[in-house]
Amino acid sequence: MEDVPQSARRVTLGIGDDAAVWRPSRSHLSVITSDALIDGVHFLSGASAPRAIGHRAMASNLSDIAAMGARPVLATVALGVAPGTSEEWILECYRGMAALAARQRTRIVGGDIVRAPVLTLALTLVGEVAPSRLKRRDGGKPGDVVAVSGPLGASRAGLEIIRSSPEIEASARAAALAAYEKPEPRVSEGRWLAASRNVHAMMDSSDGLSTDLARLAAASGCGATISHVPVHPAAEAVARAAGADPNGYALDGGEDFELIAAVGPRAFAHLSRHFERRFGRPLLAVGQLDAEPGLRLRERGAERKLAPGGYDHLNAESGLPETVGSFSSS
Amino acid sequence: MEDVPQSARRVTLGIGDDAAVWRPSRSHLSVITSDALIDGVHFLSGASAPRAIGHRAMASNLSDIAAMGARPVLATVALGVAPGTSEEWILECYRGMAALAARQRTRIVGGDIVRAPVLTLALTLVGEVAPSRLKRRDGGKPGDVVAVSGPLGASRAGLEIIRSSPEIEASARAAALAAYEKPEPRVSEGRWLAASRNVHAMMDSSDGLSTDLARLAAASGCGATISHVPVHPAAEAVARAAGADPNGYALDGGEDFELIAAVGPRAFAHLSRHFERRFGRPLLAVGQLDAEPGLRLRERGAERKLAPGGYDHLNAESGLPETVGSFSSS
Repeated sequence: MEDVPQSARRVTLGIGDDAAVWRPSRSHLSVITSDALIDGVHFLSGASAPRAIGHRAMASNLSDIAAMGARPVLATVALGVAPGTSEEWILECYRGMAALAARQRTRIVGGDIVRAPVLTLALTLVGEVAPSRLKRRDGGKPGDVVAVSGPLGASRAGLEIIRSSPEIEASARAAALAAYEKPEPRVSEGRWLAASRNVHAMMDSSDGLSTDLARLAAASGCGATISHVPVHPAAEAVARAAGADPNGYALDGGEDFELIAAVGPRAFAHLSRHFERRFGRPLLAVGQLDAEPGLRLRERGAERKLAPGGYDHLNAESGLPETVGSFSSS
Repeated sequence: MEDVPQSARRVTLGIGDDAAVWRPSRSHLSVITSDALIDGVHFLSGASAPRAIGHRAMASNLSDIAAMGARPVLATVALGVAPGTSEEWILECYRGMAALAARQRTRIVGGDIVRAPVLTLALTLVGEVAPSRLKRRDGGKPGDVVAVSGPLGASRAGLEIIRSSPEIEASARAAALAAYEKPEPRVSEGRWLAASRNVHAMMDSSDGLSTDLARLAAASGCGATISHVPVHPAAEAVARAAGADPNGYALDGGEDFELIAAVGPRAFAHLSRHFERRFGRPLLAVGQLDAEPGLRLRERGAERKLAPGGYDHLNAESGLPETVGSFSSS
């Protein structure tokens, strides 16, 4: 055989980022990401429409592709169908996935449907990016401005509405539910940011800003200080009605699928201005990367240590030991 | 943005084959396949070692890549961990996947670990192939010799041993258990066959020869007649001990992960000779493709219609309607 596999060398980025990367040709990198979603753990089939569940599963994976600066190319879906699941439920869920995929010019190219005790969705997405534009999470430098692509906490607020129906005004309620059920992955924003050399590192905020920024900082050999928490207005309203801390929703809530970027400090103002011109909303500075390890929150002039409080599928929730966690790329 | 996504045009093969295909560059096609395996449906965590379960899951996906004529490049794994699953179980299962992947020069590049009510494995494999070597299942022609890369039924025999412990001699028992727990995907064989233009169509026999040959024939707009059932000696022994029909094991058992190829009739003898020289065992002719639709079995001079009797995840087992089945690519 003349074409001896060189896969080990050609995989340029493996475990530990939003997606793995390999080099199918000289001019392109392909990226791949997989997520599994289980009824009762990652979604509630009784509380959301199947179309919204499909949408969220697709959004979560598209967000990982966006966080690499890549454009999504295709998806596969492995669907575990629980006893009693109707054909209509499956088709609606699939429509939710396919509609969002199509809007992002992506196709579901195949997959698998099997019986399972509870509804299970396992999606894999592949994307492509020019090698010079790939954004990893380990490129941040001390002094970089940490910015997010939008305000945070609205998805957590939407979950609260589903769980406890707090009394709030209709527009905040609608915004929070939309953020939870129909999050919009920042694919265009990711590609736009990836075109700038001053964006040194990028990832998405799927597990919450505190958790994901701690990961980005650690991967970059830095620490980080958060000095401004960009709370979504709907998160503010719902948290107050539920007697919770709005900052907690924004810092730890997760599933907002906004992008977190580490931007060279001298380039930030210019980049943010152009980002707002392009997308109609500002790139929000939330703090900076520091040489000192760890995560800090600066509030009213005082600084305190911040423990990552977002959703950690591996440790906090499953009780699995840390060594297993290193297996995950999400 | 200068690089407007062209994903829809670049996906050259979507739903309906062993794997989807896209074109990352002019000289290569990438292929992708996803399979989900659920405890109690596709494997029995109480009856097999975790390493064997990981091995089988990887083998099943590698077999799909092999059936395209591609070489595997990378894998992602989404693992749903049930309550009470030990870290050692997970690590052993992972070792089973990783060891087989490594032997096929493939790397697990990432994935996801989540909580689930029962053990769930969702694997995605990506492979690459030169465009001229890609083997689909729809290229068969009437008159083509249908050949398989090895004898069939041993995996079904291994399952029978686990289920009912029939009394048989040790060597047949060991061979059947190995076929069930440690099937060897035919990756080298697939790439070798893919290099021949006389191999018109190829797929793997994961759901049983009767089911998968019916699919290959239908995709090729043909029917097929089986005139020789290559029963594995271990399947013969176990079936007799269990009071079952050995031909049934070979035709309907599935999970043998042998390749089924449609070969131009004038090239078959030559190809089979070289296959045996290369792999130390013959390429076995089992019948031929016909212009007449449907599947037939010729035994002792008589011909009868054959209904696909292999494992159909979508219809026979799940009770899902046919329309959902078209979503699968396995």
